[in-house]
Amino acid sequence: MTKLKVVITRQLSADAQKLLDDVTDLHVVQWPSEKPCDRSWLLEHAKGASGILVMLTDKCDEEVIATAGPQLKVVASFSVGTDHVDRPALKSRNIRLGYTPTSLTDAVADLTVMLVLMAQRRGGEAMRAVIDGKWPQMPWHPFLLTGPQIRGCTVGFLGFGRIAQATLKRLVPFGIKRAIYLTSKPGKIVKEADGFGVPTESIGSIEELATDSDVVIVGCPLTEQTKYIVNAEFLARMKKTAVLINIARGPVVDTDALTSALDQGQIFGAGLDVIENEPNIQADHALLKQPRCVLLPHIGSAAIETREEMAIESVKNLLAGLNGEAMVNEYEL
Amino acid sequence: MTKLKVVITRQLSADAQKLLDDVTDLHVVQWPSEKPCDRSWLLEHAKGASGILVMLTDKCDEEVIATAGPQLKVVASFSVGTDHVDRPALKSRNIRLGYTPTSLTDAVADLTVMLVLMAQRRGGEAMRAVIDGKWPQMPWHPFLLTGPQIRGCTVGFLGFGRIAQATLKRLVPFGIKRAIYLTSKPGKIVKEADGFGVPTESIGSIEELATDSDVVIVGCPLTEQTKYIVNAEFLARMKKTAVLINIARGPVVDTDALTSALDQGQIFGAGLDVIENEPNIQADHALLKQPRCVLLPHIGSAAIETREEMAIESVKNLLAGLNGEAMVNEYEL
Repeated sequence: MTKLKVVITRQLSADAQKLLDDVTDLHVVQWPSEKPCDRSWLLEHAKGASGILVMLTDKCDEEVIATAGPQLKVVASFSVGTDHVDRPALKSRNIRLGYTPTSLTDAVADLTVMLVLMAQRRGGEAMRAVIDGKWPQMPWHPFLLTGPQIRGCTVGFLGFGRIAQATLKRLVPFGIKRAIYLTSKPGKIVKEADGFGVPTESIGSIEELATDSDVVIVGCPLTEQTKYIVNAEFLARMKKTAVLINIARGPVVDTDALTSALDQGQIFGAGLDVIENEPNIQADHALLKQPRCVLLPHIGSAAIETREEMAIESVKNLLAGLNGEAMVNEYEL
Repeated sequence: MTKLKVVITRQLSADAQKLLDDVTDLHVVQWPSEKPCDRSWLLEHAKGASGILVMLTDKCDEEVIATAGPQLKVVASFSVGTDHVDRPALKSRNIRLGYTPTSLTDAVADLTVMLVLMAQRRGGEAMRAVIDGKWPQMPWHPFLLTGPQIRGCTVGFLGFGRIAQATLKRLVPFGIKRAIYLTSKPGKIVKEADGFGVPTESIGSIEELATDSDVVIVGCPLTEQTKYIVNAEFLARMKKTAVLINIARGPVVDTDALTSALDQGQIFGAGLDVIENEPNIQADHALLKQPRCVLLPHIGSAAIETREEMAIESVKNLLAGLNGEAMVNEYEL
């Protein structure tokens, strides 16, 4: 019997690789480098594949799918998002799509807490002062590099899914006073919201979220409705002592409005893991000139254990797709 | 009746200033600038003072105390440490000393968690990559900028006082597995250590702390015994995936040994709020060349609310000293 061909666009972690290599009746074609797979390599090797395992950076479009041929049964994506995959093209051919949405909750929630503290306590500004050799010339005074304390804060969540809830659980022992959240169904109580150990309320309007929060955490999906939902008006309503955190998708926040709000001291600071037009952020980007803004290169899920789990889950989804079995997480096309 | 003279070496926060100004029978002489008080100004005005309120940056030595004269009843220091005050000189004259050790626990514990996450998740390195304009040229791969996850970690505390315990409480919902601690009385169980929600054990040796911990948090006082307690041997015993956090005093850690451990990949990363010879850290300091090291300019207690509380407490201690009443926190000379 001919072995089924699978194409893997990356080197995988050791455990995930073993899981794949243990399946002896597969013909595995794998991109040999640590760097992203060349598109020409993918197109060359896709032909005849029954399964393809791709990363967020590999466009799995009509061309790739058509090149593979009619025997293609499954695309397994090592990612939460699936925008890089032509889902209608898969659906029309009855090709299954696997993805990895669940394993990164903890890693992203950890990073969210880190960004809250960095924004409040001026961590970026303080680090840069030391790196630039300014510490010896900073005369100590009681309010040097001080920022608001998290104890007693009202934390507002724009979107209240798994990651937001995991973040709230972590923030409770810091002594926060209250959590409020707004979802796509304003006022509807999220089932899982009970028992966080602080008063947690679903609120009815985005204005209330902006006005009442000392910390705003943006964790909603990017949709037509949420694009630029954090705009100049939202920022103008925020407290001068409040911070804005974005761990969702860049375009949920209007970057120009945020830059101007920071510039004018309308808000205290910002912590961002994502930004519009990433990764094309040059050193002269206006937001990088704001000392109270911490910008990270989208490393929310970049924890070793998480990425290992995502790799294993991708391989399991791939194998399940080949064998007609249930995936760990299958995308409903 | 002549008003009692008090000398205040700084501008205070509004609430603390009001507390002072409300006492009408005082002659308040206050340094007028936001910058540290000149020593010559302090010596000039100390003469005849019954009380002096000083900062960590003001040396309150024999000269100042003798200059003030025999009517001096109290020195109130706006600080936790009292090394800047000549305590024997006060004791021999029966002058009382107030300080502010309790109000900063939460602020420092918050910052400690931030440093743990920054060290594990490579926050400093990631921030600097973005600032330097490298993001557009960083090809994404599954293990780009990944670091160890806090979930499942054993957290080891060198010193287990108020701040360490407050830090542990905050770390529990991140899913840590176990806490271990070593105090100046190895093996002795700290009373307050019950009920953190994770197994918490007093261990018997510093070797065990170094070997078993995924996160080492240094929070012990600086003494002759603890100077360089984190040395090359300690660092060599640590796991390659472990991080070292110092929020205590710089000389508890041997900087050269730490630099070399990071350089050779003996440990994963470090998060420091303090360092030997601070604040004289120049831009070419060897540790600043280590991308996995986050160094902050001693901002542990730099939260607005905390510093306001410290200011109020200093004024209360000053007034209590003048009136022969109980201080909020009196240093036992």
